[in-house]
Amino acid sequence: HTRGLCSASEGLDLLQLFVDRHYISPGRTNMQLCQRGMSCSYGPLGTELRRNMLDQWWHSVSRSGAQVFGISSLSCSEDRAQDGCGQVKITDSENFKQTLDHKELSKEQLLQRVHMLLQRSPSVRTNFLQGALEQFVPSLELVNRKLPFGLAETGLCFQPSDGSGCPAEVTQTSLVWFCSPRTSSQWLDHWTRLRLKWWRKFALSPSDFNSSDVPVEELETAASRGVRIIYNFPWGQEPLETLWSRGDTELLQTYKGVRSKLQCRDGRKSVPNVVSVTGNMDRGLMAFLSNSFQQLKRDDTKQKLQQRKVLKLHPVLAPVKVALDIGRGATVELRQVCEGLLQEFREAKISAWPGYLETMPTSMEHLNAKYDEMGVLFTVVIGENTLESGLVQVRSRDTTIKETMHVSEIKNFVSRYISAADNF
Amino acid sequence: HTRGLCSASEGLDLLQLFVDRHYISPGRTNMQLCQRGMSCSYGPLGTELRRNMLDQWWHSVSRSGAQVFGISSLSCSEDRAQDGCGQVKITDSENFKQTLDHKELSKEQLLQRVHMLLQRSPSVRTNFLQGALEQFVPSLELVNRKLPFGLAETGLCFQPSDGSGCPAEVTQTSLVWFCSPRTSSQWLDHWTRLRLKWWRKFALSPSDFNSSDVPVEELETAASRGVRIIYNFPWGQEPLETLWSRGDTELLQTYKGVRSKLQCRDGRKSVPNVVSVTGNMDRGLMAFLSNSFQQLKRDDTKQKLQQRKVLKLHPVLAPVKVALDIGRGATVELRQVCEGLLQEFREAKISAWPGYLETMPTSMEHLNAKYDEMGVLFTVVIGENTLESGLVQVRSRDTTIKETMHVSEIKNFVSRYISAADNF
Repeated sequence: HTRGLCSASEGLDLLQLFVDRHYISPGRTNMQLCQRGMSCSYGPLGTELRRNMLDQWWHSVSRSGAQVFGISSLSCSEDRAQDGCGQVKITDSENFKQTLDHKELSKEQLLQRVHMLLQRSPSVRTNFLQGALEQFVPSLELVNRKLPFGLAETGLCFQPSDGSGCPAEVTQTSLVWFCSPRTSSQWLDHWTRLRLKWWRKFALSPSDFNSSDVPVEELETAASRGVRIIYNFPWGQEPLETLWSRGDTELLQTYKGVRSKLQCRDGRKSVPNVVSVTGNMDRGLMAFLSNSFQQLKRDDTKQKLQQRKVLKLHPVLAPVKVALDIGRGATVELRQVCEGLLQEFREAKISAWPGYLETMPTSMEHLNAKYDEMGVLFTVVIGENTLESGLVQVRSRDTTIKETMHVSEIKNFVSRYISAADNF
Repeated sequence: HTRGLCSASEGLDLLQLFVDRHYISPGRTNMQLCQRGMSCSYGPLGTELRRNMLDQWWHSVSRSGAQVFGISSLSCSEDRAQDGCGQVKITDSENFKQTLDHKELSKEQLLQRVHMLLQRSPSVRTNFLQGALEQFVPSLELVNRKLPFGLAETGLCFQPSDGSGCPAEVTQTSLVWFCSPRTSSQWLDHWTRLRLKWWRKFALSPSDFNSSDVPVEELETAASRGVRIIYNFPWGQEPLETLWSRGDTELLQTYKGVRSKLQCRDGRKSVPNVVSVTGNMDRGLMAFLSNSFQQLKRDDTKQKLQQRKVLKLHPVLAPVKVALDIGRGATVELRQVCEGLLQEFREAKISAWPGYLETMPTSMEHLNAKYDEMGVLFTVVIGENTLESGLVQVRSRDTTIKETMHVSEIKNFVSRYISAADNF
């Protein structure tokens, strides 16, 4: 079998599949946003996949043994407007119109007012760094002034427009890590290792995820070193996450140079250094989707040569773990069994797909092809047999093997399967 | 004992407690935002509480037996700009400045350009309704064109400024429910019951949460009926959630009146009606915080009359379930036990607080007072005894009773306690 994702046109076919299978919403503009690594409008499966990714990110940084606290900052701030660095502004157009709606104003006055209105409008965050720096001092009490510790945040950030005039949205993950100056380089390496391991853990083909040092000429102003985690998309290489060793400049700026506020109990009277770890989860979602896609050729003696398309998303990330369907038999009773099972899965927080609600007659083969493209881990078929013996058929996405199992065992089976994959 | 939250000044004291205990970030502006039911900058405990609330909201709407799909729409859209309804705009100030920086422009031309720039700037969403209406048709395939079903979304929305010029952010939850016209009124009642039950489930004093019909004169344009879920804050009554029966007008508008696209298989050729359920989770968070606060007077024969302040947050919502502390004894060994336990709790996704990292000598009494104000469910003290017998002391926030337990049993004990509270 082959994994063929060589050209940009195959990339487009792939995007269409993600639209058809409810990962991303239809529309040309929306598909372009995905491809550019921006936040787009997601369908139910994409929404669940992103939720799973954000959960896993949070568990990974908070279970790492390090002291990490989640925080939540405002997405726009009037303070940040003053330093002039934020060029994406949020404005009230009514307010704007009213201020300009004075016939007696001269051209110069008018220009002045527009500039003032823009100046005063709050800036929208482009990343979570400033929010974390502002929470540094209030957080010191939590850690008893001891380093290292980190502040984590996830959510929407905005990027300045690239000429089109419309700023773009990105779902970012951010860990801002505070450590003693002499350890900052080691911590940069530590977090690079951990983050690369995380991306590879959920990949079907881990070698497509790599890290590389940022060349000196591309370093951000405050940074002394940088590392990017990169994925090979069908349409080229793109960075998924960036780690910077930023020194203490920005922390000092945020607290107007008052070093005494910032000093920690690390034996020396030094100001902490900052290591930032910033991920783009929208691009990450596209990376996992395209990485997990497999196109398999199979010989079938009865039929022609067929292609099987499977989205082999990691069991932990797959948005639908189980699909429930009915075979032949007394529909009303079979549906009742399905509803009971659906409820059981949902209580256990295992996302289940009510395929049995579909009333259009579909062959099992078509159904399996659809579920494979959706990345559904297991398909459970409840048939006449189930009512008599309690036995159901469970098909695995990854092996296509069908097993017979007692209905009372499925939930634990699926749950154990996912944890095993998680701990691997 | 008394629950005293009568005046606005007591409300302010309460806010200060939430700041001190890392629910909300310090600062006057930030505290005012909280009080106005806007999104503010949250500390680690507030961030976790909001995460728990959003999780519970999602489980409640998706486990309700109804067909609900999570979606994720863009927070700003160029399309929405055109209908002129969105007055909160996102602009690129560089772009603005460049367009206006032409000396040859006349005053009229200048004004025209400003208006055009504003017009073209994408609007930021004020709620999730439009996003859900746009996903209605792509979602029909998922449900095989059968009603009813719902589209759910949570995240940031922006509100036009109330004079101050700065638009505000709100963390909203949204369920947009599509049903047949003849059932829409029943569904409004159904969701009102379910949502009120949800708020009351997590309340310490459920009767402070109530629902009331929206008076005819306050109905939104499209709506024929509306219900608000209201909470009695120390500073007055405020709505937490609003439910509207909206008819089919907006759905028809979104699809430019093409009824054939919208028709579902409910026997008649009617266009679905929309019931919207919109919650403000920032205000909800403040409601749960102030509702769960208890000030208890207690007689202590040894000491003076004392006041005990406890944040009795529901076990499911409490941001910290267990605090781990060490008593007297060999510090190094005791810390190792704590670290093992901490890891065990985190693996089980039970949030635990590493109190043992605190190296300042504090009396157990002070520690308990602090944890009560943080709303920590259980405090586990590992002492010299633990190393010999494996026994630890577990103190309950709600009963203040201390029990002795084997270290291997704590995780299951806490886990069972939380599920029991969840199912109650």
